Amino acid sequence: MFSITVRNNIFLRLLLHKDAKSFFELMNRNREHLSRFMPRITETKSVEDTERVIALFLEQLSENNGFRAGVFIEDRLIGIAGLKYIDWLNLKTEVMYWIDKNYTGKGITTECVRKIIEVAFIHYKLNKVIIKMSVDNIGSIKVAEKCGLRFEGINRQDEMLSTGFTDMRVYSILREEYCKHSG
Amino acid sequence: MFSITVRNNIFLRLLLHKDAKSFFELMNRNREHLSRFMPRITETKSVEDTERVIALFLEQLSENNGFRAGVFIEDRLIGIAGLKYIDWLNLKTEVMYWIDKNYTGKGITTECVRKIIEVAFIHYKLNKVIIKMSVDNIGSIKVAEKCGLRFEGINRQDEMLSTGFTDMRVYSILREEYCKHSG
Amino acid sequence: MFSITVRNNIFLRLLLHKDAKSFFELMNRNREHLSRFMPRITETKSVEDTERVIALFLEQLSENNGFRAGVFIEDRLIGIAGLKYIDWLNLKTEVMYWIDKNYTGKGITTECVRKIIEVAFIHYKLNKVIIKMSVDNIGSIKVAEKCGLRFEGINRQDEMLSTGFTDMRVYSILREEYCKHSG
Amino acid sequence: MFSITVRNNIFLRLLLHKDAKSFFELMNRNREHLSRFMPRITETKSVEDTERVIALFLEQLSENNGFRAGVFIEDRLIGIAGLKYIDWLNLKTEVMYWIDKNYTGKGITTECVRKIIEVAFIHYKLNKVIIKMSVDNIGSIKVAEKCGLRFEGINRQDEMLSTGFTDMRVYSILREEYCKHSG
Amino acid sequence: MFSITVRNNIFLRLLLHKDAKSFFELMNRNREHLSRFMPRITETKSVEDTERVIALFLEQLSENNGFRAGVFIEDRLIGIAGLKYIDWLNLKTEVMYWIDKNYTGKGITTECVRKIIEVAFIHYKLNKVIIKMSVDNIGSIKVAEKCGLRFEGINRQDEMLSTGFTDMRVYSILREEYCKHSG
Amino acid sequence: MFSITVRNNIFLRLLLHKDAKSFFELMNRNREHLSRFMPRITETKSVEDTERVIALFLEQLSENNGFRAGVFIEDRLIGIAGLKYIDWLNLKTEVMYWIDKNYTGKGITTECVRKIIEVAFIHYKLNKVIIKMSVDNIGSIKVAEKCGLRFEGINRQDEMLSTGFTDMRVYSILREEYCKHSG
Repeated sequence: MFSITVRNNIFLRLLLHKDAKSFFELMNRNREHLSRFMPRITETKSVEDTERVIALFLEQLSENNGFRAGVFIEDRLIGIAGLKYIDWLNLKTEVMYWIDKNYTGKGITTECVRKIIEVAFIHYKLNKVIIKMSVDNIGSIKVAEKCGLRFEGINRQDEMLSTGFTDMRVYSILREEYCKHSG
Repeated sequence: MFSITVRNNIFLRLLLHKDAKSFFELMNRNREHLSRFMPRITETKSVEDTERVIALFLEQLSENNGFRAGVFIEDRLIGIAGLKYIDWLNLKTEVMYWIDKNYTGKGITTECVRKIIEVAFIHYKLNKVIIKMSVDNIGSIKVAEKCGLRFEGINRQDEMLSTGFTDMRVYSILREEYCKHSG
Repeated sequence: MFSITVRNNIFLRLLLHKDAKSFFELMNRNREHLSRFMPRITETKSVEDTERVIALFLEQLSENNGFRAGVFIEDRLIGIAGLKYIDWLNLKTEVMYWIDKNYTGKGITTECVRKIIEVAFIHYKLNKVIIKMSVDNIGSIKVAEKCGLRFEGINRQDEMLSTGFTDMRVYSILREEYCKHSG
Repeated sequence: MFSITVRNNIFLRLLLHKDAKSFFELMNRNREHLSRFMPRITETKSVEDTERVIALFLEQLSENNGFRAGVFIEDRLIGIAGLKYIDWLNLKTEVMYWIDKNYTGKGITTECVRKIIEVAFIHYKLNKVIIKMSVDNIGSIKVAEKCGLRFEGINRQDEMLSTGFTDMRVYSILREEYCKHSG
Repeated sequence: MFSITVRNNIFLRLLLHKDAKSFFELMNRNREHLSRFMPRITETKSVEDTERVIALFLEQLSENNGFRAGVFIEDRLIGIAGLKYIDWLNLKTEVMYWIDKNYTGKGITTECVRKIIEVAFIHYKLNKVIIKMSVDNIGSIKVAEKCGLRFEGINRQDEMLSTGFTDMRVYSILREEYCKHSG
Repeated sequence: MFSITVRNNIFLRLLLHKDAKSFFELMNRNREHLSRFMPRITETKSVEDTERVIALFLEQLSENNGFRAGVFIEDRLIGIAGLKYIDWLNLKTEVMYWIDKNYTGKGITTECVRKIIEVAFIHYKLNKVIIKMSVDNIGSIKVAEKCGLRFEGINRQDEMLSTGFTDMRVYSILREEYCKHSG
């Protein structure tokens, strides 16, 4: 179905209703791992809940407000990545992603994020892409840096995780930086 | 962006708001050609109207009711193709398509329709795919036959074109026929 | 309340919320009989469900998309009949009906269908009325033929009944045929 | 179409979209006459506006909140009558009506109102029916009295007409009075 | 938060979601007392139900259709008062109120109603304010009279209480009376 | 009407439909002044547009998503202030405000912002309040510092003003800081 090729056999593919089962199983395999930084994942408790999540993903796309797509290796769903929202007034967006714990450390996330940044600048013609992560989320900090984003500052107690409020690091890349980098 | 590869450089790609201008120009280049079998195309009179049409296409996808995607050669939009609706109660669907008059006769439509039929049977796991066309739409009759659909019958005075009511030919292919053919 | 007289003591009457109880009982008396050709009837399991069905009937009318009315002998509800939808673009419609098993074989259905066809052509000024039925639904085939509809063809595996996919016979009558017949 | 017989050739018939033209013409013939007690009638300025009014009438019915129907002599639309709303919590309703100035004084209104009161008590099983009219609306006062309603009191400056605020007379009939009267 | 000062330490304050708990407890302490004249209060059975009631109050305000606010002594919620609706076509409104049984007989209700009448005439510039109460609701009759409203008449069997239909007394005050009184 | 007292004769008062005229005039007097940092203000071009803006303000309140209120000296509307949104998942919010150019430099804004911060921490029980302003908006920087917020960092090219993208300074105050400061 509708997909963006990241490289060879890695795709960002739109999730449809029929993907609910495999998406739910992916969440189940990663609940412990994910709930640290994504506390709300615990609200998705069944395949039916997951269908509603997929419907929300498609609504986001149809409202021109970014997208969340499945990360696939061939036909295997291993994560979710996309643009959390698009702020059309200020032409900025925020990248989101998470990946199955068995597939981390292989550079897949970095390649997906690079592709999504390309979509934001080339396809949507935005001016700024940000990534935010908890200050102790070392993996995400590395991804942001590898993708050429610059550290902007720390937002104090900016998100409530299951362990309490956490400071968030903010990274960003501007259109002018992206073009210099890519041109 | 999100696309399905038909072959080499031919894609079915989801249209987003930013495609409104090129989609409107495509319609303009083909108005005379299209208005014969698609009288309602005359209702889309501006880029703003076209943005609303694209929004409807995306809504259709998010409602799990089929899709309409752009037919692209590389980055050039040359047509629209998809599934008009999905009747989930009876597991059937109907293919729709139209293509820029400069690109007809090259087998592109046939290849797109074949791909869409594959999506219907393999991806959506439906039981029946139909194609309907006006009895004097020779081009579409050929496409249906090349794609392995069988003639079901004629629906008398079934659509109102700008020239009056027209009889429609109905073609269909069933899952069992598709699987035999493809297996 | 609001009704169309079919003959003497037979009426098509709009169902209102207060009819939910008798409508639900009618369905209960005919569940076995009906579920063969109308598998979804099993979804209506209570008077509350039935109230929602009646609300949908009234919404259909208020959206100018056909109607479903009760078939009454005097004050006794014995069936449902109407127009499934109105395709205003192509000026066509489809008749639907079912009747209590104790009242079949008396010509009541045929008279109701004749009246509904009259409403479609005279009142709504449509161009085509169709009736579709499963190929082994002998009763409905007779009704269509008695009402002057002509056989158009067979739609293969077109509906999913509780027993699997069924081929559907399509009958139709055009405005020109109706006027000749009636004039 | 769907109608309630008032007597011989007088009907309350549901208005459908196709009645917009004759309904608009009826309003036009009676604008001066009507605008005195129905100032908002001036807001309906075209057949398109009238279609929206008819859609609102049908919505009211589908929401189980009363109805407004056309008053017909044979096929000729001569007025509007119905129940303004149904207060299901308190089982009460209010009758409304107006009639073409050429048809007043013939008892038609009184017969329609009697039928509507019957619908309210017998069909909807309500407990109270009221009619309100401006204190100088002699015609309506007579209708209320002929239909057996009793004077309840005067609501001071209760409606704003084109000539300023007017006191309204309130008449009512209770279920117990109706049953005694009819039984 | 947003409030209207009635006098010294008495306020009409908008209820927000966070007030649901204290509002629910107030209803619980007064259920027996209130259910006589407000039978629907029994439908609010939990803090969650109460949150929905508060959301409806705020919606009413945002639709410019009156308001329902908490009556507070300092920070203690002791009742609800406001305008049930605003009839902008006829510039009239209806006052509603109820108060904790431990705070009746202290003139608080009367002062709140006076303030609300002021809001209706001075702030909303309406023409008529009414208060309706069951004929045996002596307390409310006194409040209406103390606030300068005049008796209009009795609406027979106008509301259904838990004990059956009740006659309602109607009181009103007109802008011209209010201005003479206040000027 | 519903207001929060900031001090003596300064209030945050909810705007209602009737305030549209004075709100529109306030915007008109300050268009040049405001359009530098609030480019979208140019979209409100009439009293009717302003009524829609007020309706949006009230909707925001009824959705429990913060508020925008008028800043009043006695009965004179001189500005707008409130909470842009409430992020209930992370218990944070953002203050917004603007004031008539003739009333700046008198400490009114600072007092309003202090009151709003109090509402956020004491009333809504949130954990974090932020204020963002363009790096060259000296006035707003002073307000933030006077209200005890701490500088968090600079968001590069974070808003698009009429003059192009601007870097934004972010200030914040946490619940623990507010309580120490206030306790």
